[in-house]
Amino acid sequence: MKIVTGGITKPKGFLANGLSCGIKRSGKEDLSLIYSENLANAACVFTKNSVKAAPLLVCQIHLRNKKAQAIITNSGNANCFTGKAGLAHAQKTAALIAKYLKIKSSDVLVASTGIIGKPLPFEKIEHSAKALVEGLSTSGWMKAAKGILTTDTGVKQLAVSLNLGGKTVTIAGIAKGSGMIAPNMATMLGFVTTDAAISSAMLQQALKIANEQSFNRITVDGCMSTNDMLAILANGQAKNKTINTAGADFKKFTQALGVVCLDLAKKIVLDGEGATKFIEIEVKGAKTEALAKDAGLAVANSPLVKTAAFGSNPNWGRVAAAVGSLGIASITEKNLKIDFSPFDKKKIKIIVNLNNGTKKASVYTSDLSYEYVKINVEYT
Amino acid sequence: MKIVTGGITKPKGFLANGLSCGIKRSGKEDLSLIYSENLANAACVFTKNSVKAAPLLVCQIHLRNKKAQAIITNSGNANCFTGKAGLAHAQKTAALIAKYLKIKSSDVLVASTGIIGKPLPFEKIEHSAKALVEGLSTSGWMKAAKGILTTDTGVKQLAVSLNLGGKTVTIAGIAKGSGMIAPNMATMLGFVTTDAAISSAMLQQALKIANEQSFNRITVDGCMSTNDMLAILANGQAKNKTINTAGADFKKFTQALGVVCLDLAKKIVLDGEGATKFIEIEVKGAKTEALAKDAGLAVANSPLVKTAAFGSNPNWGRVAAAVGSLGIASITEKNLKIDFSPFDKKKIKIIVNLNNGTKKASVYTSDLSYEYVKINVEYT
Repeated sequence: MKIVTGGITKPKGFLANGLSCGIKRSGKEDLSLIYSENLANAACVFTKNSVKAAPLLVCQIHLRNKKAQAIITNSGNANCFTGKAGLAHAQKTAALIAKYLKIKSSDVLVASTGIIGKPLPFEKIEHSAKALVEGLSTSGWMKAAKGILTTDTGVKQLAVSLNLGGKTVTIAGIAKGSGMIAPNMATMLGFVTTDAAISSAMLQQALKIANEQSFNRITVDGCMSTNDMLAILANGQAKNKTINTAGADFKKFTQALGVVCLDLAKKIVLDGEGATKFIEIEVKGAKTEALAKDAGLAVANSPLVKTAAFGSNPNWGRVAAAVGSLGIASITEKNLKIDFSPFDKKKIKIIVNLNNGTKKASVYTSDLSYEYVKINVEYT
Repeated sequence: MKIVTGGITKPKGFLANGLSCGIKRSGKEDLSLIYSENLANAACVFTKNSVKAAPLLVCQIHLRNKKAQAIITNSGNANCFTGKAGLAHAQKTAALIAKYLKIKSSDVLVASTGIIGKPLPFEKIEHSAKALVEGLSTSGWMKAAKGILTTDTGVKQLAVSLNLGGKTVTIAGIAKGSGMIAPNMATMLGFVTTDAAISSAMLQQALKIANEQSFNRITVDGCMSTNDMLAILANGQAKNKTINTAGADFKKFTQALGVVCLDLAKKIVLDGEGATKFIEIEVKGAKTEALAKDAGLAVANSPLVKTAAFGSNPNWGRVAAAVGSLGIASITEKNLKIDFSPFDKKKIKIIVNLNNGTKKASVYTSDLSYEYVKINVEYT
């Protein structure tokens, strides 16, 4: 497996584009389109928030056949808590893109990110849809990567290629943060393209595994979004032997997908709102991996730990209190051991040893700075 | 029931004192002593954090007979994660105070609050213990109230009196915040004195009820402390008919105790680190009170809701996302209704109607300001 350039249009048969339709007052890209020349197998994971935005409800319907050919995203407006009108807007967005692409509306996935509770200015999307489709190209990946951003300060992307039975398979992804990042997806959009030939069922399984090891292990502010989704399209153009079982090829594919997802997840943390430091919390000596993850997240979500990190203060007392707050009897002063890696201006590693088992997990977060408060006070 | 002046020495037979022994570099009071002339029935609730500070372990032993006569607190050092030496220091502190008071060491409760993980400078306590005991008086309640504070900006106290069968019973409390405040007690010390005659068993029950409706419904930063305790001493000097059952007198007593605890809890929130606003989240229309409380706490602990409140921004989308993050299927856009009371410079009320039942609960929190970050970056 190696990292390659070329973004989400590097896998064979994918085109992309992005442009500004005027939802964002800044004039930055706010529409993004990803398109596969042929109908692709598709898989998706959604936020566990029970308040789900309209586009997610549309995607859930469109994914019933586990196939899709395009993903249209608008940024600047979450189209969430927008009632029947919002649902109609999401459906109409899919239909509009389908019309210009000359594909079925049900093969278009829709995503939105931005402010909750304001009507989606659908007329702006309507006005720009034709240009968005006409501008699709193999070099449009950067525009597409920009079109999904909100408070992000930069594009998040990675492409890797691997060899599967003599064929080069490419997996590429883009993602956006950067607030409302918490496990169980949080405000995060991730789109992955691949030319791998893989069944829908195995694709869904691979995505679930990769997501659990990446996006579900990051947190910026502990807030779970209404709009998160991670979607993957696999169009089979690499012509590898179709992955139908959990064999060696599946393992290689899932591992590479995991690398892409973890890289994107870490980039989201690095670009967390107001983040000045990247914090890894490695919890080891746990009875189960789930417990290690929970302990890591308890530390990662502690405002006291996060403000201490902002101040470059190795305050292990706060780490101990956070781990203890899980209320698990076996976690006591006696067996708990906390270490900090040598301090770096931009990176902190906290190692928590529960001394109570052999399992471990790493969780990633950012610090809590003045800038985080500023961004979220002023964002409307 | 009426509010009375006179603090924790207002109930008959209680004396108090506070002074500076030098733990706090600021020279402010850092020792506090509460004393009952006769052995009192005692009850206590502790943090659910599995990492418990040394003084809590000592209290749990000293409370086996459900009686106590004095409470000694030091602030500025939590005596937590301090190993065997810390445990010995807590025991020696109790013994020292007992010696000067001429009571049994096991009748002294010990509490600490402050920085975690630094050795308790026991010699400073040792040096000042005699003066602390000698200075006990009925007018020492303000000094005692000051001696338990850490980053608090002011004293938190309330005293109320009520009539039980023709006798005047007084209940008075002091508390400290102001960071690491979360439900299940969090960093919070609360001490209540009463001259009511009530059995140990009923006293424990009353305290549990009052605590659940007050300190367990507040959160400043979602962090659970290692040192929390809420203790009550009831010395019976009011000579009311001893409360032995859950009858009318118990109800009246518990209600008055609830008023004291809720008042102290709200004062902790008002004085939350960096707080500029007091936020009440009332959740109604819930299937159970527990669910209403959980939903309220999800909103109260959301940094996005708290920063919006700091900016006086009625961002109900963030409230909806926080409630939805519980992942409960019945909480959807369709039935969820969110209202904000008219904005006030210092007070915000958020009303969340789940439209799914008849139960309700209120939860209290503060906003997330630049000052919160500042306090917690600089605190060491």
